[in-house]
Amino acid sequence: MQPYELSLAAAADAIRARQLSPVELVDSVLGRLEKVEPLLDAYVTVAAEQARRSARAAEHDAAHGRYRGPLHGVPMGLKDLIDVAGWATTASSRVRADHRAQADSTVAARLTAAGAVLLGKTHTHEFAYGLTTPQTSNAWDRGRVAGGSSGGSAVAVAAGAATFSLGTDTGGSIRVPAALNGVVGLKPTYGLVPRHGVTSLSWSLDHVGPITRTVQDAALVLAVLTGHDPRDPASLATPAVDYRPGAGTDLTGLRIGLPRTYYFDHLDAQVEAAVRHAIGQLEALGARLVEIDIPMTRYIQPTLWGLVLPEATAYHERTLRTVPELYQADVRVLLEVGELMTAGDYLRAQRSRTLMREQWARILETVDVIAAPTVPMTAAAADQETVTWPDGTVEGVSDALVRLSAPANITGVPALSIPVGRDSAGLPIGMQLLGRPLGERALLRVGHAYEQTQPARALAPVA
Amino acid sequence: MQPYELSLAAAADAIRARQLSPVELVDSVLGRLEKVEPLLDAYVTVAAEQARRSARAAEHDAAHGRYRGPLHGVPMGLKDLIDVAGWATTASSRVRADHRAQADSTVAARLTAAGAVLLGKTHTHEFAYGLTTPQTSNAWDRGRVAGGSSGGSAVAVAAGAATFSLGTDTGGSIRVPAALNGVVGLKPTYGLVPRHGVTSLSWSLDHVGPITRTVQDAALVLAVLTGHDPRDPASLATPAVDYRPGAGTDLTGLRIGLPRTYYFDHLDAQVEAAVRHAIGQLEALGARLVEIDIPMTRYIQPTLWGLVLPEATAYHERTLRTVPELYQADVRVLLEVGELMTAGDYLRAQRSRTLMREQWARILETVDVIAAPTVPMTAAAADQETVTWPDGTVEGVSDALVRLSAPANITGVPALSIPVGRDSAGLPIGMQLLGRPLGERALLRVGHAYEQTQPARALAPVA
Repeated sequence: MQPYELSLAAAADAIRARQLSPVELVDSVLGRLEKVEPLLDAYVTVAAEQARRSARAAEHDAAHGRYRGPLHGVPMGLKDLIDVAGWATTASSRVRADHRAQADSTVAARLTAAGAVLLGKTHTHEFAYGLTTPQTSNAWDRGRVAGGSSGGSAVAVAAGAATFSLGTDTGGSIRVPAALNGVVGLKPTYGLVPRHGVTSLSWSLDHVGPITRTVQDAALVLAVLTGHDPRDPASLATPAVDYRPGAGTDLTGLRIGLPRTYYFDHLDAQVEAAVRHAIGQLEALGARLVEIDIPMTRYIQPTLWGLVLPEATAYHERTLRTVPELYQADVRVLLEVGELMTAGDYLRAQRSRTLMREQWARILETVDVIAAPTVPMTAAAADQETVTWPDGTVEGVSDALVRLSAPANITGVPALSIPVGRDSAGLPIGMQLLGRPLGERALLRVGHAYEQTQPARALAPVA
Repeated sequence: MQPYELSLAAAADAIRARQLSPVELVDSVLGRLEKVEPLLDAYVTVAAEQARRSARAAEHDAAHGRYRGPLHGVPMGLKDLIDVAGWATTASSRVRADHRAQADSTVAARLTAAGAVLLGKTHTHEFAYGLTTPQTSNAWDRGRVAGGSSGGSAVAVAAGAATFSLGTDTGGSIRVPAALNGVVGLKPTYGLVPRHGVTSLSWSLDHVGPITRTVQDAALVLAVLTGHDPRDPASLATPAVDYRPGAGTDLTGLRIGLPRTYYFDHLDAQVEAAVRHAIGQLEALGARLVEIDIPMTRYIQPTLWGLVLPEATAYHERTLRTVPELYQADVRVLLEVGELMTAGDYLRAQRSRTLMREQWARILETVDVIAAPTVPMTAAAADQETVTWPDGTVEGVSDALVRLSAPANITGVPALSIPVGRDSAGLPIGMQLLGRPLGERALLRVGHAYEQTQPARALAPVA
């Protein structure tokens, strides 16, 4: 096994046990990156020399018994919406060609302080406003979409071109590419991870979170990211929590909500089979299934768009006037639609969100976790625009990709996507675990227990 | 001294000491109410018989040593935006003619559980959307405005027609009438007092709070009102706090922010003199004055209106379409203006609020309390539409009334208005103390200390 194949936990443990040096690890991941990047285009920028310098410093420190933190010497990719001092934050957009961040975002500063080594900035759908990340290829099939908007981050982790990465998630942008590339993605509770220094898409729905190869790794990164930051007005003041899941896999007493409505409608048959099989595994571990009804399902998409469209347009107000031609056509049209929204439209969406939050909170009093597919299909072909469901319904690919992830953004509840197998074409399938606000521990525990029942996952082969 | 003249604290203590019976107290207040109400029109509805029944029950309980709570047997008025089961909540509007509340609001239920006796529902500017309460007369001069929107609540307390009352405050609607009628009004921190069952004007700015004759009384009522309620999405989960100010008046070490900007611009000379004199008293008690600059002053009014206009219109969306003719002209025009606002307008106001909150938080790290006038003038004549300031500037009366109270609504910080004397016409003057979020204790302590330096205040004579 090459160092680039190691999970974050295994790599960090090996470094601390002096069985692996940060230089070996970073060199190995950079070697893999240099091999796969021409095929996948996961990165906007790679700073190999800078990463090697950081690795040598980490090695020097380790040799003297100094460890910066739990991520000492571990190489990462950051979605290119996340400010790093001295780097451009391009948001994968021509609008940001001349950008240069003055200071680290809160999350970048915390990861660096914990010892992580930055390899580079990963591609996003332009300004995170889309679900495909067209610049980047799926790690398992170059002819298919990476998913988005954190496509580069998910593909890099899936292919071994980063040991972990960060993404952002406004309607599903961490979980969708995680599911489509067979990795783990966590959208934390709204407000748990500070967004200071992270380019906004829709501030009332934006979240930052980890993309990793195991659930345990997601717990390790999450612990570094949390903690109040007054510079993000939505940041919660929460006590420090040990997110690491224990070794046990017994889920006796745990109530898993199984949605009767919404999450299993219009679903690829192989995705449904894999998710139901995984839920069966959780049952076999002792969990009890409780059927639940998802409330206000007709309002989910209008509420999401009623919030995103005006908030995104407000953020881009100036550049939409001065340099509209620099935006990609798909993003520009969404920004222009946002200009037509009335305050009443927006407030209807806000009020609908408030009602949805209340109704979800009531459901989450009756179950500990909800299990559902992350996306209703595996990765579509890059040029595919619609999907036709067995009942003849035609749905846009982007609408399908966002459909099952949006509720967790609207309600702010945490949601973890984990791989639960692959379809007959070899494409990964994701299952989503949703929990109570600040219930990340329960999600990580259930996800980790499931993972223990499965054989170790291989990296995407990439060829 | 008649029982109706007693402060809440004195009345509650006398009841508990068996020196006063709830029946005596309620009869005395009802007698005063029946005398002054024809002159003042503070109440929409008075339920004298029901109040007397409650008083007899309270007397019976007291005779058996049973006290429901700290407000046992104390008569109150509730602004007619506050639901009480079985009562109409008219919002002083023809739109609500057929209304009947099914259940108590959270605050009504808590006050009843604490032993308070409801006398009746007090007048509001229609739907709280204005600062004068035209139905009601000022307690000190019948030709002058009561202030609003909680005009009835403030006038009833000032005139002895209630021992205390509740108001609501979206842009100053507790503090403005409190100041203009010479009583104490507290707008708590946003989210501290639950609003479930209280008719909304602008949900991101609405607050419920007490109107009383002393600062100590405000503390007693506040303690009953606080505590998390999940039915108000903005309700904070805060620990119980003993808000009662101690007996001491020493303010040594306390830093009082004295605004160099905004709060002392365009101010009646007698109001300015009274407020500066009161601040001098605080200095004499040991407080240290620190000059501060109020940030973003040009944005205060646009931010308030950018939030209120669309939120109020959203709340009235249906009735504005079905029965527009039932609204008063001044309220209807504001609701119709709200229909013209874009989502971008609203979001600019939201973003401006976020920046203001951050900048106020920084100022409130450098001082403990800010002292300022509550309103820049004493009560205007009922038919007065504008005020002309010494530099020739002309300002609408409503704009002037809201000008100094709005910042605490936008930022959500607590603000206490206390009487600091009267002008040469005998009209009351109010000083405002503003504090850190959840800093009610500091405000009540300072306000109480000031009160101890002053002779006891008489009720408004009313004739």
